[in-house]
Amino acid sequence: MIRTVRVELGRRGYDVRIGSGLLATLGETAAALDDVSSVVVIADATVADHYGETGVDALRSAGIATKLLTFAPGEASKTLRTYAALVDGLLEPGGDRPAADRQMLIVAMGGGVTGDLAGFVAATVLRGVRFVQCPTTLLADVDSAVGGKTGVDHPAGKNLIGAFHQPSAVLIDVGTLGTLPDAELRNGLAECVKHAVIRDAELLEFIEDRAEAVFARDDDTLSELVARNVAIKAAVVVADEREQGQRAHLNFGHTVGHAIEADAGYAVSHGQGVALGMIAEAELAVRRGLLGRDAAGRLRNVLGRLGLPVRRGDLNAERLWPIMQRDKKVRGGKVRFVLPTALGAVDVFDDVTADELAEALKIIM
Amino acid sequence: MIRTVRVELGRRGYDVRIGSGLLATLGETAAALDDVSSVVVIADATVADHYGETGVDALRSAGIATKLLTFAPGEASKTLRTYAALVDGLLEPGGDRPAADRQMLIVAMGGGVTGDLAGFVAATVLRGVRFVQCPTTLLADVDSAVGGKTGVDHPAGKNLIGAFHQPSAVLIDVGTLGTLPDAELRNGLAECVKHAVIRDAELLEFIEDRAEAVFARDDDTLSELVARNVAIKAAVVVADEREQGQRAHLNFGHTVGHAIEADAGYAVSHGQGVALGMIAEAELAVRRGLLGRDAAGRLRNVLGRLGLPVRRGDLNAERLWPIMQRDKKVRGGKVRFVLPTALGAVDVFDDVTADELAEALKIIM
Repeated sequence: MIRTVRVELGRRGYDVRIGSGLLATLGETAAALDDVSSVVVIADATVADHYGETGVDALRSAGIATKLLTFAPGEASKTLRTYAALVDGLLEPGGDRPAADRQMLIVAMGGGVTGDLAGFVAATVLRGVRFVQCPTTLLADVDSAVGGKTGVDHPAGKNLIGAFHQPSAVLIDVGTLGTLPDAELRNGLAECVKHAVIRDAELLEFIEDRAEAVFARDDDTLSELVARNVAIKAAVVVADEREQGQRAHLNFGHTVGHAIEADAGYAVSHGQGVALGMIAEAELAVRRGLLGRDAAGRLRNVLGRLGLPVRRGDLNAERLWPIMQRDKKVRGGKVRFVLPTALGAVDVFDDVTADELAEALKIIM
Repeated sequence: MIRTVRVELGRRGYDVRIGSGLLATLGETAAALDDVSSVVVIADATVADHYGETGVDALRSAGIATKLLTFAPGEASKTLRTYAALVDGLLEPGGDRPAADRQMLIVAMGGGVTGDLAGFVAATVLRGVRFVQCPTTLLADVDSAVGGKTGVDHPAGKNLIGAFHQPSAVLIDVGTLGTLPDAELRNGLAECVKHAVIRDAELLEFIEDRAEAVFARDDDTLSELVARNVAIKAAVVVADEREQGQRAHLNFGHTVGHAIEADAGYAVSHGQGVALGMIAEAELAVRRGLLGRDAAGRLRNVLGRLGLPVRRGDLNAERLWPIMQRDKKVRGGKVRFVLPTALGAVDVFDDVTADELAEALKIIM
């Protein structure tokens, strides 16, 4: 069964297709786009080993000249340097591919690093060519593959360079989650829980009920989980493509979470940071009387059951607060927090004080 | 007298203000934008010497924290390397400027290289911040400063990396043309003639009548010339922001012109290339019976009177044709030509043959 979620962005709208074995249909997806001259698949070396051939074969079988470009796996590759190397690879003609032109299509095959990097290449080569996201991690499936944020890191911070550039299609093959380590699955689950808290209490119930089937990589459970999350992400993006308003809701857990990740020199994974961040931010909400303590406890419980951290010894509000103030989402010098007002609803606050945060952080220390 | 042309792009619309001495009003322009946290002025070292202080003082007098970033003058700086250095300069806090945030404003002060480079920085830092164009060459005034094309060159070709990113305002101080060498003025005049041919025969008459006053740097003549050209450019951009259709008309003279520039290793200036390209492409139109020989002769005459080249010995159709086929505007392997059907009107053709071009090129050899 293939599930489809439409991202309704008018002329820039696109379908997200979700199911098992979809990578083998990549040729049809590319052929369904108008007037594609050639395809360049961008993947890290590990993903290329696992799925590169499936994707490239599917494209070539559809009669499309295809080239594969790879880079070294890992967040350390998400730099202007790797970006420049990929652009070089694109602009030099080679193999069965003609010289680059505006009808070329880029396929980003991999996790969030690949999607962000290859998406930024697509956003900027020839002032923008089309691209298709083929995410292969749960985190990319439910978060980065939909919404058009692309970019690379800078020594001054993550994702400080980039562009908004929507994909022309997203193809989510949940079969690729079979080779994904549990730790990576948990990174995605943290974002699923986040989506539930900001928009959909029933999704929280689904996650609580089906956690075992998720870890067993049951295809239909994974497809349903991904489809529900993509629908939430898509709705938020459609309402606020350029992050002027409610797209900020997606940052629930991220103000504190990003700071924890950065403070740990990224030895804490994104999912771990967000899990800790959500608990701390829910505690801020509880202490402000916005959220019941039971609801916050339920959030903490589900995160623990999923194997995500609910506390971390090495935390210090005096170190974390200045990191938050350097975040690119800071506006007018004020750190913005997304706080739950119920399970399924959030609001944005810019008046949280350092002291208030220090108190709330105790719950995760 | 200040002339204003509105670029009607809805939410992304902006005013182009044209007059003498406008750089001193840069502070008011920045202050009129919502919620600007700080300004970074980007200029090459030469322009910074001439006008940096005027611009920076104007901004600081308006109470806006301002920093000046410079780079080495010349097209050779229009690279990912210079781009990366400017991004580093932006993201490192310094002087009286807070750390970068999304409310920062970039001012691109200089010619086309600076506008394209600083515009690309603005398009991509923090996934896009606002910028103001302050062009200081006639070419930038009438062409690159309006329309939102930003980017850098790549060894495989010019402008192969970039983004569409509209400025928030354009401030054209025609007083800066006082220090511009005549050769640079001619580069801009070639684009003015192009605008006349594609849209406005009366503008051609204006250029013929007022050439002397232009070279004498008469402020009001320059303002009128720039305003008329900006109005044409703006109308074309509004009709086709992303270059899907009629924005291609702006490439009249450029298919052949770019190839001549590239073939000469850019020893031929852009204006010279476009002048030669316009004559060759007009000849293509004459030979097809699209344009009268008198009209083509008038075009050739005005270019000659402006001091632009009307022939060049070292040309070879067999070398130029493959260069045209590598152009990023090639579509489906077909080279597209914009040919005049009258003085003031053009159409797009993709069926010009190598032989036909070789014949037409004889008129500029």
